[in-house]
Amino acid sequence: MAEVVAMKRPEADGPVIADLSGGVLTLTLSNPPANALSLVTMDALQAELDRAKGDDAVRVVVIAAAGKLFSGGHDLKEMTSHRTDPDGGRSFFEHTFAVCSRLMQSIVRLPKPVIAAVDGIATAAGCQLVASCDLAIATDRSRFGVNGIDVGLFCTTPSVALSRKVKAKHAMEMLLTGEMIDATAAREYGLINRVVPSEYLDQVVQKYARTIAAKSSLALRMGKEAFYTQAEMGLAGAYEHASRVMVDNMMAHDAREGIDAFIAKRKPEWSGH
Amino acid sequence: MAEVVAMKRPEADGPVIADLSGGVLTLTLSNPPANALSLVTMDALQAELDRAKGDDAVRVVVIAAAGKLFSGGHDLKEMTSHRTDPDGGRSFFEHTFAVCSRLMQSIVRLPKPVIAAVDGIATAAGCQLVASCDLAIATDRSRFGVNGIDVGLFCTTPSVALSRKVKAKHAMEMLLTGEMIDATAAREYGLINRVVPSEYLDQVVQKYARTIAAKSSLALRMGKEAFYTQAEMGLAGAYEHASRVMVDNMMAHDAREGIDAFIAKRKPEWSGH
Amino acid sequence: MAEVVAMKRPEADGPVIADLSGGVLTLTLSNPPANALSLVTMDALQAELDRAKGDDAVRVVVIAAAGKLFSGGHDLKEMTSHRTDPDGGRSFFEHTFAVCSRLMQSIVRLPKPVIAAVDGIATAAGCQLVASCDLAIATDRSRFGVNGIDVGLFCTTPSVALSRKVKAKHAMEMLLTGEMIDATAAREYGLINRVVPSEYLDQVVQKYARTIAAKSSLALRMGKEAFYTQAEMGLAGAYEHASRVMVDNMMAHDAREGIDAFIAKRKPEWSGH
Repeated sequence: MAEVVAMKRPEADGPVIADLSGGVLTLTLSNPPANALSLVTMDALQAELDRAKGDDAVRVVVIAAAGKLFSGGHDLKEMTSHRTDPDGGRSFFEHTFAVCSRLMQSIVRLPKPVIAAVDGIATAAGCQLVASCDLAIATDRSRFGVNGIDVGLFCTTPSVALSRKVKAKHAMEMLLTGEMIDATAAREYGLINRVVPSEYLDQVVQKYARTIAAKSSLALRMGKEAFYTQAEMGLAGAYEHASRVMVDNMMAHDAREGIDAFIAKRKPEWSGH
Repeated sequence: MAEVVAMKRPEADGPVIADLSGGVLTLTLSNPPANALSLVTMDALQAELDRAKGDDAVRVVVIAAAGKLFSGGHDLKEMTSHRTDPDGGRSFFEHTFAVCSRLMQSIVRLPKPVIAAVDGIATAAGCQLVASCDLAIATDRSRFGVNGIDVGLFCTTPSVALSRKVKAKHAMEMLLTGEMIDATAAREYGLINRVVPSEYLDQVVQKYARTIAAKSSLALRMGKEAFYTQAEMGLAGAYEHASRVMVDNMMAHDAREGIDAFIAKRKPEWSGH
Repeated sequence: MAEVVAMKRPEADGPVIADLSGGVLTLTLSNPPANALSLVTMDALQAELDRAKGDDAVRVVVIAAAGKLFSGGHDLKEMTSHRTDPDGGRSFFEHTFAVCSRLMQSIVRLPKPVIAAVDGIATAAGCQLVASCDLAIATDRSRFGVNGIDVGLFCTTPSVALSRKVKAKHAMEMLLTGEMIDATAAREYGLINRVVPSEYLDQVVQKYARTIAAKSSLALRMGKEAFYTQAEMGLAGAYEHASRVMVDNMMAHDAREGIDAFIAKRKPEWSGH
């Protein structure tokens, strides 16, 4: 990666700060004190992901958070304030969960890898955000929970993401008891990939992000899309789909260049095509 | 939980003993020596689950067992006795597996959390019973196996439950070799949640059960149902379903009460609605 | 198992060496230096599996490899040589991935257990081969990776097998970074069942293979088929299918013999029917 693009968007004092460097777009939740996923915050994150999707300069996305909490999930005060709406809040709640579900699926559907960088507490939709990312790295003081059950609101939408990443009994224990797990348990459960001391979080996340950013963006895009698509198919259908993708990937410039470079023992030069 | 209801059913000397205390219904298999899942035992367990389903006093179900074995699975002598039926036993076997499959699905579909409390050996359909529960706690001397293969009868119905809780290669090793695993391996595989010394089993199970019994029964019901329903859907369908459930949960009394209590920093009072 | 059949096929100097002993068919990849899955090698492996399918003397299949690598995956030089075809190689690539996908599914669909015996490096389609087997045992110096991303070719077809055996975040880390994992991580991820010192690989694999070969081949066939079939169904459909298989298994000779022998405390004699 020769080019290094550094940039901060004007909305740097909004609820999501975007920073692009070396092909890695870091989106930092900045909605103190709990980085709640209020509507404004979710809209801002969605807008950044939509922008990143078509931006060739963005090769990998990192979702991080400012402050001592990663994210406490939905903004309960915001939701409660709509209890006095004529419909008791129903349409606001419908909108909120539609926005949230679209956001979480946008992470999965984004044709670029997304890494969660967690330092602190990630609960409810905050934990769902971590689960939705392709990879997650967390500090040893991080804690994870889906504790909506403690306020009479089972974390049903978070369970969609969680149950696709960890085993059923682990998910159920978290969902039914509302109890937090530490970073070691989260790694053991498969919710996160790695636990690091706090002072090394940035360094390790950057190492992952830059390692991946140095790959062919075309191959990453084709592969990530196919990974989640085939996961919902039966074995025969999955192989049919994957084989088609593999052939298309082989016919693209980057696979030709990559394989030629490998055989010639030189470094490949990706075109992203 | 203000009210504490203690009760033993008349059929206390039947194959399943029911005991309700503090919202926790404990169903104890009492069919010595192996707590085999004979037809009578499965019918008794099914009847208790059906009763528990509509009983507001039951918030959490615990499935335990008397004696040194948790359950050895189907009653092979009972099944063999039907070999002399005019049809060679076929309709009895069909009935047995229909009853068993309905029972296991009833645990999954029960709108209340079910915890297995295991002390001893759980094999074949006994292991399936553990796998089918939402949570499982076992003593360190417990052992688990799906060893039907040793008698020429592959544990196919147990594999339905097992394969939804543990990874494929772990399930296949157990199914193909028929070998037992110890409680530590069962915890590592995700078949159980926790291993405890024998003398602490009741205490730990009660701690889990009462923690969960203190939550909103409405939220538990909506959440458990949605968890297993969405797990069978693709990501988009799962989010649509989960979002609808989440909105309905938000509109219910208990979520309003729970969130209000959280914001006001007081204890919530659940209505179960 | 009274009979011990020992046999080497004439094609013992081909890319796959077949050796049948005590009901265990060992297929050894012998395509130095990397045991690449060239078309000829895949065709030879497919032919052996097809033959094994209908051969009652084969009760268990072991897939092993000669030399220091287990398998480096597809033959990149072979594929590159077809870049000059009139269609740029497309039909050759289509053929290659069709053959490979059929081979991997044949392992899953084979009505006999398949064990991977790994000593060395297994990458890309070589790692897919390990993932596709029912069980896998590896030496402590073995390494696993899906590193196609390093040559601009995301390991999409390997991800079909991998994602059905390990958790999503573990699969994604391997696929996105292209980095190798050691045998301990592979065991922790569920890609393999057991890690052994190099000098014990044969002994441990044979112990597994012969343990399983001593079971009823009928029960193994019915059970393995049903295991992967029910895994693609919803819970209700899975139980319907599994119950039918269980009844048919109960009605077969081997279950009758096995259960009778168990009750009479004698060794069963399997007929395979």
